[in-house]
Parts: sequence; structure tokens; C-alpha cells
Amino acid sequence: MLQSTMNTTSQTLKGFRDFLPSQMAVRNYVKNVLTQVFELYGFEPLETPALEYSSVLKGKYSSEADEKLGYFFKDNGNRDVGLRYDLTVPVSKVLAIYSNQIALPFKRYQIQPVWRAENTQKGRYREFVQCDIDTFGATSPISDAEIISLIYTATQKLNFKKFIIRINSRILLQQILADCDIKKDQNSILQSLDKFQKIGQDGVTKELISKGLNTTQTNRLFECIKQAQPDSDLQKVFNVIKDFNVPPAFYVFDPTLVRGCDYYTGTIFETMVEEPAIGAIGGGGRYDKLISTLGGPDIPAVGYSFGFERIVDVINELNLIPNLPQTTTKVLVTNFSPELENESLKLASLLRQNGIPCSLYPTSDKMGKQLKYADSLKIPYVAILGPDEIKNNTITLKNMVTGQQQTADINIVLNL
Amino acid sequence: MLQSTMNTTSQTLKGFRDFLPSQMAVRNYVKNVLTQVFELYGFEPLETPALEYSSVLKGKYSSEADEKLGYFFKDNGNRDVGLRYDLTVPVSKVLAIYSNQIALPFKRYQIQPVWRAENTQKGRYREFVQCDIDTFGATSPISDAEIISLIYTATQKLNFKKFIIRINSRILLQQILADCDIKKDQNSILQSLDKFQKIGQDGVTKELISKGLNTTQTNRLFECIKQAQPDSDLQKVFNVIKDFNVPPAFYVFDPTLVRGCDYYTGTIFETMVEEPAIGAIGGGGRYDKLISTLGGPDIPAVGYSFGFERIVDVINELNLIPNLPQTTTKVLVTNFSPELENESLKLASLLRQNGIPCSLYPTSDKMGKQLKYADSLKIPYVAILGPDEIKNNTITLKNMVTGQQQTADINIVLNL
Repeated sequence: MLQSTMNTTSQTLKGFRDFLPSQMAVRNYVKNVLTQVFELYGFEPLETPALEYSSVLKGKYSSEADEKLGYFFKDNGNRDVGLRYDLTVPVSKVLAIYSNQIALPFKRYQIQPVWRAENTQKGRYREFVQCDIDTFGATSPISDAEIISLIYTATQKLNFKKFIIRINSRILLQQILADCDIKKDQNSILQSLDKFQKIGQDGVTKELISKGLNTTQTNRLFECIKQAQPDSDLQKVFNVIKDFNVPPAFYVFDPTLVRGCDYYTGTIFETMVEEPAIGAIGGGGRYDKLISTLGGPDIPAVGYSFGFERIVDVINELNLIPNLPQTTTKVLVTNFSPELENESLKLASLLRQNGIPCSLYPTSDKMGKQLKYADSLKIPYVAILGPDEIKNNTITLKNMVTGQQQTADINIVLNL
Repeated sequence: MLQSTMNTTSQTLKGFRDFLPSQMAVRNYVKNVLTQVFELYGFEPLETPALEYSSVLKGKYSSEADEKLGYFFKDNGNRDVGLRYDLTVPVSKVLAIYSNQIALPFKRYQIQPVWRAENTQKGRYREFVQCDIDTFGATSPISDAEIISLIYTATQKLNFKKFIIRINSRILLQQILADCDIKKDQNSILQSLDKFQKIGQDGVTKELISKGLNTTQTNRLFECIKQAQPDSDLQKVFNVIKDFNVPPAFYVFDPTLVRGCDYYTGTIFETMVEEPAIGAIGGGGRYDKLISTLGGPDIPAVGYSFGFERIVDVINELNLIPNLPQTTTKVLVTNFSPELENESLKLASLLRQNGIPCSLYPTSDKMGKQLKYADSLKIPYVAILGPDEIKNNTITLKNMVTGQQQTADINIVLNL
């Protein structure tokens, strides 16, 4: 009730964000790096609508998603509609509708916002960008390995210094459970095992005992895990990763990796950043049955989701890319006086013709104010054309980072 | 009622669209060209949320917008919310909230989808991308001219051969109405005048007479228009456009230009593409009072909106960019046999290390099937590594457009 009586005419909804240019700089940097790598690996862009029929979205995940987290409503035509909740359900719909236009394997990337009415907290938003790559219609371990190779390349390019891609297989985990004669509550047992990295063998054992396993079983489980070796499919994945030139320091077979979601059917993987120690920034795996469950055709799939918002937040918080320009504008062309204005206009025009992004100060305010403006926008260079410069056919260029200033011919700006 | 009983589980909402990779190619091309030009002119990116409080959105335009066209609903927290209807209301909100973080003049571009429950028809969608540039906080005619110069550069880069930017001023139109002693129904009179290009002087006269003007007034009106000259502000705009090197053939003073919206207060402009003859692809002008009306601070503004969807549709329909790649993938590396597979893997890896986007066929299907796959994805080159090639340390490269095929060393692919 409070909500509706508050003055909300100049307010942004909780969990939603406005992105000013300096914030867009980091977001666009991450998006551009990822897009470039996706395309290098032959993944192609796909976009789907923000709104879908509720029947497309509902009943696909949990009742919580349908009733609490999803944004569902009736549109003006009395249709039940909802906002995109993830990118996997929409792509399942696309695979169902356009099957005759889509050649398999279909390798697509999709970078779009999704909406979930989560409890907001640090790092959790109600509107956030998901960034998925998936290969549909290929069972070959080459497709799994290709995605792992892509993850390596992309994470490198994002400037993360030390990271490791943990790799395991759900089939192997099932085999281990069978070998240990664990038939009940398999998913719950695996959830506990997934905490191995966090709480260690003792912690996991305690949880498993509380879930009804006896010490013989837990000992046997850890023995099996210790001795676990990739099965033939997973071995093939590792061989291909090697052929793809991924350095061995960046990936590891980890039989304790489980990944939360139930729907994985084969290879699973997760990227842990160790320096800085920020934990997982993405995960994925093979899910050969999910697309048909979600209403799409019965086709195999393997994919990965980059934690876009997590990556952006980490880059911002830890200032991981200190030299990232906060604006794409390279030069502010100042405006000395109404009489000399057209010289500044011509300079801005010349810079643009030479592909140098610049802004032109529109009035001849005091030079100090114009410099302050450049500084607040983090524009790295300021060009000044005063009476002396014009008389001598020169330009004064001030480096706003170092404060250094030099006066020379036009080439000092054209060579920026 | 029909709607809710239809099987909508694999259906996209009317007026909404899924964009497959080949469609994304054109959209991304247009978006990238425009973004590049915006940044060249010192405009910076801004993004705002899809959802806003209804109070942010409502009461800003017409009751039709509020009651019929807008997507409004109550969220799970009982808040009245709505989907973004345009990009001007959100930027007014941003200017109000972040006034202490935003240095003026604030030059922003914004390329985001908006949602309107329009009657769908050819070229009219319920989810469509708007693409706006605006300079806030500058009254100088330089800002108006800078945007016109930007329009020229962007429209050129989009490959439109012959177009003209029509330029007029609302102040001048008001002056003409005053000179002709037309005081009543000024907006309605101007709406009729706006049709001059379409229905000519006779057509406009007929409309004006039906609106209550007498022949003396209409004659005088056309006399005034014939003799109209830019006032001093508009003349300054023209002078600056010239200093910005915009060729005279691409812009014209047109005293019959009105532009639909009531909120313009000064310069107005519109881009007409004459070859191919597709009409207007964007418009804008100065609106010094609108931002405060919309709930923002009282600051002047001048801007332009590119008709993004119109431009994309026209490029598609008229095949205006015949050589635009339909995929970013340059090479399909085929898979000859399980024994030779790792050679193909290594080639794909090498291409990627050299920045050449390629896809790797994941299984050793018949070569005909692999070539067909490349063809359906419009991948321009196919690399084949069979036993002969491997023995001779060569690669066979097939150009999928010309059908030509050559066998040579690795450089034929590395130099693509």
C-alpha cells in the first residue's frame, strides 16, 4: 500500500538500474569481448521477444518461477503474457517454430535481459543480462570441448589472470553412485558433494550422514571419487581440448563438480577465477533432454552461461581494467570565442572525417569551465584553438590525465 | 476468448518477432553503423530499465498511450508498473534523478526496444527498437547543426544514395501564422501544411478552406511561405552545417516542413530518402520545454530519432546491401573422418588464433552434407582436410559463392 502512495514519478524500480555512460563503458566492453569470441568460434546471434505467451514460459521450471519470480499479466487483448525469464525456454520455442529454417548443428549466442522478481540484494537484480552460448543438434564431444576452448579464450580476453575450468560428467557421477550402491535421494547426495570445494571432505561427510548414509558408504564414495577417471566420452572431451591448444593449467578433471541443475546429462563444467579470488563466473554442460522437456524438438544440446552481471560487478568493484576508457570520446574541441568558433567547428569536422571521436563544446564559456567539463566526462584530450594557435596554424593539445600540454601542428591530434 | 483456448505453447505473440541469425545480421549492421557515428560525434550510451513505475510513464503523452497502447500491470509487490513506451520519458527521469552526476551538455544515444500495443500491420510492431540521440542542456544552434551533420554522416554510411534533410523552424512557422493573422487552430493548420510534399498546394488549400480559412488567408499563407527566409537562429544553423562540411545537395530549407509533434520549439528536421524513394526515415528537432513537462529538470534539448525498424525493413525488402554477410562465420572447417579429425581441430584452432571466425563441423558426415550445411548458413568458405591434403601439407579451400576450389598451403586460409 505504501508503494502506491509514494511519489514514484522520478524513481527507478527496486532491482532495476539506469546505466549512465561511464557504467555503459564496462558493460559494452564485456559484451563486445564476449561477442567477438563467440563469433570467432562460429556462434551466431539470436534474439527473442521480451514478452511471450504465459503458456510458453509457465510450467517449465519451478512453481516458484511461475507464481512468484515471473512477471506475468494480462495484456490489453486479454492474452496471458509474461516477461522472458531466461534464454533457454525462448530458444526451445525458436527451435520448435523454425525447425525447417534452422540447419543443425545450430550454434547460437544470445545476450539479452531477463526479468525475475527476486529478493534484491548485492549482486542480485530483477532485470539482468543473461549471456548464453549453446550448440544444438550435436552429440559429439567435440562440441563440448569447443565450448570449453571458447570459455578459455573469452575468460583470458576479459583479463582474468588466473582461472580454472573444472570439468566433470554427470554420467560418471551416476556411475560412482551406482558403484557405491547409493540409489536413494541421488540428487540430494550430489548437492552435498557439490560443496566439496567449500566445506571439504569432513563437511560433506557430515551432511551425507545426516542425509542417511552410513560411514561405509561415505568412505566408499570418497574412495570412488579419489580413483575416478574420465570415461571414454569425457576422455574424448579432454583430448579435443588439448588439440584446441587450451593450456593444461586452465582446466582440470574434478569428480566433485556437480552443478546445481538437474537437467544435465553428460559433461558439466564451471569456471572458477582464482586471482582475484572471486569464485565461479559461469557454468554449463550437456543437456540432451531439456529442449524437448521445454517444448522444443528432441535434440541434444551443450552450452554455457557467462555470469554477465557478476563479471561486470567484479570488474567495477576490483577495478580490474584500470585503463578502460570511461567514454568513447577521445577529444573535446573547445570553443574559444564567438569570433574563432568556426575554426573549432572545422577542427571537429576534420577529426570526425579522420575517424577520431570528438565532442565540440557548443558555447564559448570560460576555458576553465570547458576543461572541467572534459574532466567530468573523462575525455582524455582537450584541443584549444585560441588567437595564437590560429595565427600560427597550430593546435594546443592538453592531456587530461597527465596534465601535459603541447602546441604543434594538426598532426598532434590526427595521430591520437 | 479464442486467444486463451488456442495452443500457444509454441507461438510468438502477434507484433513480436524472433530474429534468427540471418535477420540479426542486418539489425546488427545498422546498429553498429549508427553506434559508430554517434560515438564519432561525441554522443555516449545510456540504457534504462524495461519496466518503470506507471507514474513515471503515465500522463506524459495521450490518454490513448496510457489506456490502450501502453503495457501496464501490477507486479507481484502490488506496484503499478509499465513497459518502456519510448526513450524520451526515461531520459527525463534520468536527468531528474542523476542531475548531480550528469555534466551539461549531456549528449546521449540510446538504442533499446520499446513496447506499444499498436494495431499490427506491415512495418508496425508491438516490440520495436528506438534509436535516439539528444543533446540536453545546450541552446546553441551549433548543437542543432551538429545533429544534422551527424544525420548526414550516418545516412551516408548506411548506403542510402540520394537523400535530403529538410530543415525548418517552428518559430518561423509561428511567425508566418502571425503575419497571416491566423490565430485559431494553429496546430491543425500546421498539420495541413505538413502535407504539402504529399498533396501539393491545391490539396493543402482545400483542407485549409474546409478548416475555415478564406482564400485571401490561404493565398497570403502560401505567399509568406514562398518568401520565407531562415530567421537569425536558423541561419546560424545553416552556417554551422556548412562549416561541418555537409554537401549542399543533402540539406534544404523547407518552410512547409512541420513535423507532427506539438512539443518542438525551434529547429525541426526530417530525412527523406529519394533513391530508393522510400520517404522519411527519421526526424527530430529542438524541444526546449518537453523535458520539464515530462518530469525532468527545465533544460533545453535537441534530438533526432532514427527510424531503426524502417531502415532495417527497407534494407531487407530492397536488398540495399547485397554483399552484407548473413553470418559472421568466415570458414567452415569440415570433418573428413574420425582418423583425420584432429587435423581439422588444429586448423580451426589456428584460424581462431589468427582472428578468423570459423565453425568446425563436429562429426564426419558425408562431405556433401557438410557443404550443404555451410551453404544453408551462408558461410562463404569451406576448408577440406582429406588424406591427400594432409599428406601434402595443404588445404583445399572452396569458395561457396563462386564454387571455385583451390588446394594450396595454409596461407590460403590465413589470408582470408
